[in-house]
Amino acid sequence: MSDQPLIDRVIAGDARAVARAISKVEDGTAGASQLMKEIFPRTGRALVVGITGAPGAGKSTLVDRLAAFYRKQGQRVGIVAVDPSSPFSGGAILGDRIRMQALALDKDVFIRSMATRGNLGGLARGTVDAVAILDAAGYQKILVETVGVGQDEVEIVKTADVCVVVMVPGMGDDVQTMKAGIMEIGDIFVINKADREGVLRTEKELQALLTLASREDDWQMPIVKTVATENRGLEELAVAIEQSRKFQLTQSTSSERRHAVARWRILELLRDRLLEETLKTNQANEKLEALAAEVATKQRDPYSAVDELIKSGAVN
Amino acid sequence: MSDQPLIDRVIAGDARAVARAISKVEDGTAGASQLMKEIFPRTGRALVVGITGAPGAGKSTLVDRLAAFYRKQGQRVGIVAVDPSSPFSGGAILGDRIRMQALALDKDVFIRSMATRGNLGGLARGTVDAVAILDAAGYQKILVETVGVGQDEVEIVKTADVCVVVMVPGMGDDVQTMKAGIMEIGDIFVINKADREGVLRTEKELQALLTLASREDDWQMPIVKTVATENRGLEELAVAIEQSRKFQLTQSTSSERRHAVARWRILELLRDRLLEETLKTNQANEKLEALAAEVATKQRDPYSAVDELIKSGAVN
Repeated sequence: MSDQPLIDRVIAGDARAVARAISKVEDGTAGASQLMKEIFPRTGRALVVGITGAPGAGKSTLVDRLAAFYRKQGQRVGIVAVDPSSPFSGGAILGDRIRMQALALDKDVFIRSMATRGNLGGLARGTVDAVAILDAAGYQKILVETVGVGQDEVEIVKTADVCVVVMVPGMGDDVQTMKAGIMEIGDIFVINKADREGVLRTEKELQALLTLASREDDWQMPIVKTVATENRGLEELAVAIEQSRKFQLTQSTSSERRHAVARWRILELLRDRLLEETLKTNQANEKLEALAAEVATKQRDPYSAVDELIKSGAVN
Repeated sequence: MSDQPLIDRVIAGDARAVARAISKVEDGTAGASQLMKEIFPRTGRALVVGITGAPGAGKSTLVDRLAAFYRKQGQRVGIVAVDPSSPFSGGAILGDRIRMQALALDKDVFIRSMATRGNLGGLARGTVDAVAILDAAGYQKILVETVGVGQDEVEIVKTADVCVVVMVPGMGDDVQTMKAGIMEIGDIFVINKADREGVLRTEKELQALLTLASREDDWQMPIVKTVATENRGLEELAVAIEQSRKFQLTQSTSSERRHAVARWRILELLRDRLLEETLKTNQANEKLEALAAEVATKQRDPYSAVDELIKSGAVN
């Protein structure tokens, strides 16, 4: 069956087709590559906002409320929640269930959780492809939510047009020990739960930290205070996001950023693709299992097992 | 220069040689593969303990105090702290500084932080190789500390002989929303900061959760209460670790676990190796940059860029 109808339906904004297309890409089924090739030229219209923060910062609520805010402006909103393979959060499943109640009845909101990657990789690739599909489907605002820990998760946020870093008051000590990395990824900082004690201290410390930042452009990273559960501060956040986006488009660093993202996407795809190619035959998989058995019983080291896999012609 | 002297010095337990060997492997320098091939037959004597938990659970302190406990028993201890590329923790750097004071003067304690992986991957591989080097160097207890979020981090913990999951009281809600995954990775559960309020509730909830666990073996996962800052509960933890290890060795699932780890190690290495091979020439890198530029300006989609890289013979 050709994928043409699926692609057409995605481009027409059909939510079911979007869901199917994302599953296809996530599973790496045959045709996923062709699908993405046809999707790609249709992308680039959406504003992609990455939202990250430590566990417990209230990211999901903030994302939901921001989505609702955009909906009131008549925008179609896609939400991609990356649930890292953490045993410490009910992330995807619970998050989805709560969201179902508030947003899922709205046909102009599309919510998708990305599960863990498999043996062949794919969390980062799958997420970025899901964003592209939503973009092609005409969702104007796409919110990508990740917990800000873990390599893939941080990389994913960096592919967004605007990165929002969410914190909470009382992280005082944590702000001081934050690494320079936070200034590299954040375009906008949100202090959520800003009705809590300690908000001023957190804000001051964050301000001090941001003055130390040496960005490649002159963007003044704003600090926005929100109480997402009460819908406070959301308009300010939306304005800051819009300003950040507009600012970037005037900057030459914007094209450097796009180049770095493009390079990263190619590498992620290449990494997955090379491994898939290597393991596509039964013979290669049998060889892998046999070698794993030898390594497990210490008859062989893993490095020479890889040499052997490559040499045996399982690879190529 | 041959690596023979370095290998000999590693096996003799020379800390500086160990440090150099780990750097070699982490950087993927030439000779790293040969080094690991020679290291591998010398491994398998150490007890490798993975320690993971949500940020703020007090993992670093627990690891340090457990190390000190083992030192009193005359054991040589290696600590590998995996610092995921998180902007939300001062992890590696700060952690090291604090540790320096307490443990670094002890020549029989080796501490290493593994930084983020590069473009070519390697966090998981580098960490597992570092553990192998410490093992070959005669460190009897090796503690691998990771924050329990993120794909690589969780995979790393699974390669340990015994996995300890650390929590704190008052995570009540979190315990309830924990995923089944936590029961898959944990052999032992620690409630740290057990002098805090809410410890009973957390313990009860955790117990309830653990009764739902369907492990492949009959191991009864113990819950150990600790106050690491006061050295309380460490002996109980050490005993539980020893028992878990002994139990495993009697189980047929133990060999399955080793097989799965071996398989994963081969795949991680293969993934990195294939990408390295692909990008080892200047020509391939120039091609990559040219394609990234085309993708960045939307003249080309990333999927066909990968096709092009592979077709151009840059790959193979």
